[in-house]
Amino acid sequence: MSIAHSSFYNMLKVPEHQVAGHLAVDGKLGPLVDDSGRFYKPLQGDGRGNKELAFYESFSSDTRVPDHIRKYFPVCYGSQLLEASNGSGLLHHLVLQDIVSSHRNPSIMDVKIGSRTWYPEASDNYIQKCLEKDRRTTTVSLGFRIAGLQLYEGKESGYWRPGRKEVQSFTVYNVRSILRRFVSSNSSIGNENSDCSFAPSIYGGSAGILEQLLELKAWFEDQTIYHFHSCSLLIFFDKESVSKGSASVPEIKLIDFAHVVEGKGVIDHNFLGGLCSLIKFVSEVLSDSKESSIKDRVESEKPGICTDNGNCQ
Amino acid sequence: MSIAHSSFYNMLKVPEHQVAGHLAVDGKLGPLVDDSGRFYKPLQGDGRGNKELAFYESFSSDTRVPDHIRKYFPVCYGSQLLEASNGSGLLHHLVLQDIVSSHRNPSIMDVKIGSRTWYPEASDNYIQKCLEKDRRTTTVSLGFRIAGLQLYEGKESGYWRPGRKEVQSFTVYNVRSILRRFVSSNSSIGNENSDCSFAPSIYGGSAGILEQLLELKAWFEDQTIYHFHSCSLLIFFDKESVSKGSASVPEIKLIDFAHVVEGKGVIDHNFLGGLCSLIKFVSEVLSDSKESSIKDRVESEKPGICTDNGNCQ
Repeated sequence: MSIAHSSFYNMLKVPEHQVAGHLAVDGKLGPLVDDSGRFYKPLQGDGRGNKELAFYESFSSDTRVPDHIRKYFPVCYGSQLLEASNGSGLLHHLVLQDIVSSHRNPSIMDVKIGSRTWYPEASDNYIQKCLEKDRRTTTVSLGFRIAGLQLYEGKESGYWRPGRKEVQSFTVYNVRSILRRFVSSNSSIGNENSDCSFAPSIYGGSAGILEQLLELKAWFEDQTIYHFHSCSLLIFFDKESVSKGSASVPEIKLIDFAHVVEGKGVIDHNFLGGLCSLIKFVSEVLSDSKESSIKDRVESEKPGICTDNGNCQ
Repeated sequence: MSIAHSSFYNMLKVPEHQVAGHLAVDGKLGPLVDDSGRFYKPLQGDGRGNKELAFYESFSSDTRVPDHIRKYFPVCYGSQLLEASNGSGLLHHLVLQDIVSSHRNPSIMDVKIGSRTWYPEASDNYIQKCLEKDRRTTTVSLGFRIAGLQLYEGKESGYWRPGRKEVQSFTVYNVRSILRRFVSSNSSIGNENSDCSFAPSIYGGSAGILEQLLELKAWFEDQTIYHFHSCSLLIFFDKESVSKGSASVPEIKLIDFAHVVEGKGVIDHNFLGGLCSLIKFVSEVLSDSKESSIKDRVESEKPGICTDNGNCQ
């Protein structure tokens, strides 16, 4: 752990692409980033911050975690004392990899996985609070909820960033259409007309989101080390690169580990069930997009209709 | 629907192998069986009975359910008016296949699947009642709980049938050792010494419990027709046949459908998560038993240790 110098502190700024959680604006406490690709998350005082730090320490040294799974977690560089964004003075911050820093205009979804965000070890108060929110959102019905998002809609329109209240009111119908809009070239037009034209390159393919989700699923069917409560999958890609035909690999990272508990020899069935539900939704967008692209091709290859006088239309 | 004649009624009796639910003894209401392999379950008056009947009717005619999945459900023969076992007069009964009737001394586990038995559509009272029991048992921690069981221990000892209170107090540790005892030849000796000698033939093999669970899992990853709340897997086999070396196919049936609701295009992530957790437990018993049998073989094939004087021990 080290103390940041004030010249270094001057370089810190509010993250441009944070879609959920507390924002470091209007004198509030929130995470900061620098230009070297690091993300500074204030350690919450109620023990959650230390729990998250302890998770990263345990995780990084646990040899039971396979290498191909580590890429789904941000790199952690320990903790550091920094001036807090709310002006309250020096505060411990978790130093993490700024996972979206290499993207110019990322479209991002923060998907909180699991049909419950609470866990038996928590206090009754905490359980009731979580349960109430889990029932109010799609957590119970879908096994996951969208906790925040930004969709890049192009140079002129910029981002679609629904507010916290709107996000918390998302229904199953909304979630389904957001998963379509996320990979559509015409997302700004409206939900109904989403063309899902990027679905094959973002959700599909050997390096696509679906394959990554399936790789995670295989691990969750087996791992009994951790139970990831109230943890999110951050799913992101650069739409502009895809539009221009450049190779852009969509990414998934697990984030938010303040409520991780030991698995004690039992799989994380809560996370796994929700993950399988998300996989089903993503698969459906992908197969719908394939079907409609086959339909389009068949339509365009149809021979013209010949009229009685021999003219073809 | 038909009304049973009294001569027919006389043939009805209390099921010999019922391990959970209300028993038709001491003037109480419970299911009955006959000698032709039918199981008569009284329709509960609070609407649950009709919900279960409606499920069977919907399920039996739903062409989306694949044939290889139907074998995991009891056959339903509709409903019938019968004298209730508590002497209250004629009552509608669901007429089902008596799934264990062909077994002489079946070992049976009733495993209630899911990390919650409640569902959003239920009343707040019902939800709180279920939640409290889910937290008290292994439902929340394991994603399933053992709701009842009988283990056949041989001609002299008969069955081990723990009472309702004992079953409800099962911990994760108990569940793990019951899954071992279930496939052990020496189950009566005590938990610690379970030999798991039947694990390869009951849990393993192409027709074993594990393969059947995996077949169900594949369906649950895809099906969005039903959500099976508070539903059990009945797992059973005839230990005596296995001991004598006869081919005895272990069976799995899903039972208890009073709380099934429509899936509305979402997978049953609650059932699926619990099923995957059970699969992990069963796999572990199986791989432990394989390891110990390899170890035994290696031990027995070890060459004797030669002493200095050339004598081999």
